[in-house]
Amino acid sequence: MSDVLVERDGPFITITMDRPRRRNALSRDFLLTLTEAFREAGGTDARGIVLAANGPAFSAGHDFADMAGAAHADVRSLLQTCTDLMRTIQSVPQVVVARVHALATAAGCQLVASCDLAVAAESAAFAAPGGKGGWFCHTPMVPISRNVGRKRAMEMALTGDVIDARTAADWGLINYAVPDDELEKATRELLERATRGSARSKALGKQALYAQLDRPEQDAYTYAIEVMAASSQTPEAQEGMRAFLDKRPPTWPA
Amino acid sequence: MSDVLVERDGPFITITMDRPRRRNALSRDFLLTLTEAFREAGGTDARGIVLAANGPAFSAGHDFADMAGAAHADVRSLLQTCTDLMRTIQSVPQVVVARVHALATAAGCQLVASCDLAVAAESAAFAAPGGKGGWFCHTPMVPISRNVGRKRAMEMALTGDVIDARTAADWGLINYAVPDDELEKATRELLERATRGSARSKALGKQALYAQLDRPEQDAYTYAIEVMAASSQTPEAQEGMRAFLDKRPPTWPA
Amino acid sequence: MSDVLVERDGPFITITMDRPRRRNALSRDFLLTLTEAFREAGGTDARGIVLAANGPAFSAGHDFADMAGAAHADVRSLLQTCTDLMRTIQSVPQVVVARVHALATAAGCQLVASCDLAVAAESAAFAAPGGKGGWFCHTPMVPISRNVGRKRAMEMALTGDVIDARTAADWGLINYAVPDDELEKATRELLERATRGSARSKALGKQALYAQLDRPEQDAYTYAIEVMAASSQTPEAQEGMRAFLDKRPPTWPA
Repeated sequence: MSDVLVERDGPFITITMDRPRRRNALSRDFLLTLTEAFREAGGTDARGIVLAANGPAFSAGHDFADMAGAAHADVRSLLQTCTDLMRTIQSVPQVVVARVHALATAAGCQLVASCDLAVAAESAAFAAPGGKGGWFCHTPMVPISRNVGRKRAMEMALTGDVIDARTAADWGLINYAVPDDELEKATRELLERATRGSARSKALGKQALYAQLDRPEQDAYTYAIEVMAASSQTPEAQEGMRAFLDKRPPTWPA
Repeated sequence: MSDVLVERDGPFITITMDRPRRRNALSRDFLLTLTEAFREAGGTDARGIVLAANGPAFSAGHDFADMAGAAHADVRSLLQTCTDLMRTIQSVPQVVVARVHALATAAGCQLVASCDLAVAAESAAFAAPGGKGGWFCHTPMVPISRNVGRKRAMEMALTGDVIDARTAADWGLINYAVPDDELEKATRELLERATRGSARSKALGKQALYAQLDRPEQDAYTYAIEVMAASSQTPEAQEGMRAFLDKRPPTWPA
Repeated sequence: MSDVLVERDGPFITITMDRPRRRNALSRDFLLTLTEAFREAGGTDARGIVLAANGPAFSAGHDFADMAGAAHADVRSLLQTCTDLMRTIQSVPQVVVARVHALATAAGCQLVASCDLAVAAESAAFAAPGGKGGWFCHTPMVPISRNVGRKRAMEMALTGDVIDARTAADWGLINYAVPDDELEKATRELLERATRGSARSKALGKQALYAQLDRPEQDAYTYAIEVMAASSQTPEAQEGMRAFLDKRPPTWPA
């Protein structure tokens, strides 16, 4: 796929945004290609997906060249295409980790917020810059404001200023900020830790966690009880429990 | 307006609570005067509003002299008046920053939690003291618990104890705690950063952010897509994009 | 009650899980005994409850010996029994503090997340280990994900790895991490701070805070205004205000 590199290394797939000259700007074609890459990866037996990028920026978000002068319906359609990518990242059965080596802004920052986990180099940075321009980062703030507290979301949205990777880790937008030369290793280690155990159980777990998060606590319990009771009957749950009781390593069903 | 000072300095309006002898207690008249000051400021072309205070306290919250012995309907009415102020702060088109120089308690702490942004002097402090008395801080906890995590909200509400400004910044109740003699400068700097760009775009952005925060993530996306698509057609969005592409400074429509 | 020790010391009741050989695993009988202990404590005039544990673990969560091979309906029933305990902890009128001296995993970690407040020894740790096995921690993540941010909840759930007490305090899963030999004193101090004032007012406050947290902000205000207006008419609210105005210590109605 042009502009998007997909590599498989054992249980992991790395999807790399490779439009360095455009700072990985999210044009319609690029969004569709990325979404397709995630859908295809989602259909494999890989256990984890890394979202990475080449070039001077992780992603600069939407490409104003596509947007300036575009009709209302075309902008809506582009934003729906963009949201489809975000939803696809959340809905694939694999664990998805963003590996952020450089600046992630607007819909590029939204990408990081939409991944299940995120690791950034200390020299990376994050921003929702629409607030200091003429077109507010409405859709990027949807997942950003679900990762950080309200005053901090307001600060990012209203100032549009960049926050550094350590601040992003402190605020909860990413999991870890690490020295630049340790980014690949740290991302790999987190992904390895996050992909142990039954992949089937984890795929259900990821979806159920996102689903219950949006509900009032008692509704979340009603839902989680049913999911947990049903999943107790799966071969992977039974194998996990029996292996624990037998003090032997589990063998997960394919 | 008696007890409330309103000053305009260039693009910014400072609304100062000036009831020092009553520790800026929020009597009905004072609430109405403050709400009116925010409504009037909201109707001007100012870009940002500072909520400040004079005297030994930022605000001590409701005045027990008004409340003791008051009838149920009168208390409800007073609380509705108080909530109107909080909603007005959130609904004016300007960015509102609390500049907290001293203790903010009960509905005074609620004021800080209700501003879009907040900066405090290191010697300032925050509390929801109803929990250690006979009348719990029910309404103040509404915005406080939307700024800080659940265990911390419970600690503030149940103990009623003060937390210092550094802790408040760490928990996300405020954006920054700064040395006392830098409070004015730091507030001004944050407000300047938060008010760049198109004021019209930012006014919509602020409202949309509050609106989407309360919705499940997918509903929030549905809403944010429509707002962002519609706002792409505004003169300010088009000017922002064209200026960026032309590598020239934007000129925002009035 | 076998396996559960209940001690009253002045205004406080300590409920201690005492199944050290089973690492305080939450079998059906143990869950029912704990729930009954909380219900009974809830009916007393005690002002605060400590949930503590004996043995090498705070609680290891569900007992796989009960779960392996269990029928769907039996697992659902066990999870409902477990959720009843969590709801009971939240619904008793007293302030409940978890005193965590050691590892709390799965439903054991859920117990900590469900208490109003929590203090842990620095050597304690927390995990939702289902994610690295075959049966995801669906129900434990319900309250855990309401205490910590989304990326951190995902990290706990997907990796299943333990986080230490300092990290748990930083993320907001607990209120304080303290040196091991200060655990009892620190828990007692927090409980004393959290149980001052009218117990009746605080019982209503705790319930109202949990209830409003799950609502959109404006609905939360509508609810909180009614609760606060109604509670203004109680003897404890009037006594608190009059004592404040008279500059005398309040005497709370029994």
